[in-house]
Amino acid sequence: MSEPVVLISAFEVPAGEAEAFIAAWERTRDYLRTQPGYIDTALHQSLAPDAEFQFVNVAHWRSAAEHSAAMRSPGLREATVGMAGYRPHPALYQVVRT
Amino acid sequence: MSEPVVLISAFEVPAGEAEAFIAAWERTRDYLRTQPGYIDTALHQSLAPDAEFQFVNVAHWRSAAEHSAAMRSPGLREATVGMAGYRPHPALYQVVRT
Repeated sequence: MSEPVVLISAFEVPAGEAEAFIAAWERTRDYLRTQPGYIDTALHQSLAPDAEFQFVNVAHWRSAAEHSAAMRSPGLREATVGMAGYRPHPALYQVVRT
Repeated sequence: MSEPVVLISAFEVPAGEAEAFIAAWERTRDYLRTQPGYIDTALHQSLAPDAEFQFVNVAHWRSAAEHSAAMRSPGLREATVGMAGYRPHPALYQVVRT
């Protein structure tokens, strides 16, 4: 099976750390967009700075297997080092209703 | 200001309750799509049934004010009664990076 999947990651980011988070996220994105199977991504910021999840990333990948391979790829650790302070809640999804 | 907004709601739904949740969500959607400012919605289900958030709803509204009005509208309570058992984590967002 190689259906497209949606990676949704909600991040716990304190109100005052938006700029630092975005910079770290951009570095991660710049790496992941070089990986096979990456389609696109959109970083969502909450209108309220004190939301439980100030940021939610919604990314599309060609398949779960390719996303998994990107997560295991050699460059990932260095690309994501700046994200370490922000607790992520990631999972892979498919759209089931509209 | 009346820019479009993205409502992202992550729901805590036990693995065995997917069908009941989807039925309750459809009833809520059928009501909200009648409200001014509603654009579209997409219900995402996790590939893993035991994900922290088995469902994430991503909906677009024409403005935060219209979404807020829909949340205060007289029919909302009845339309959402089936959702009561599933803990939601909702917030309004805008896309800040792609």
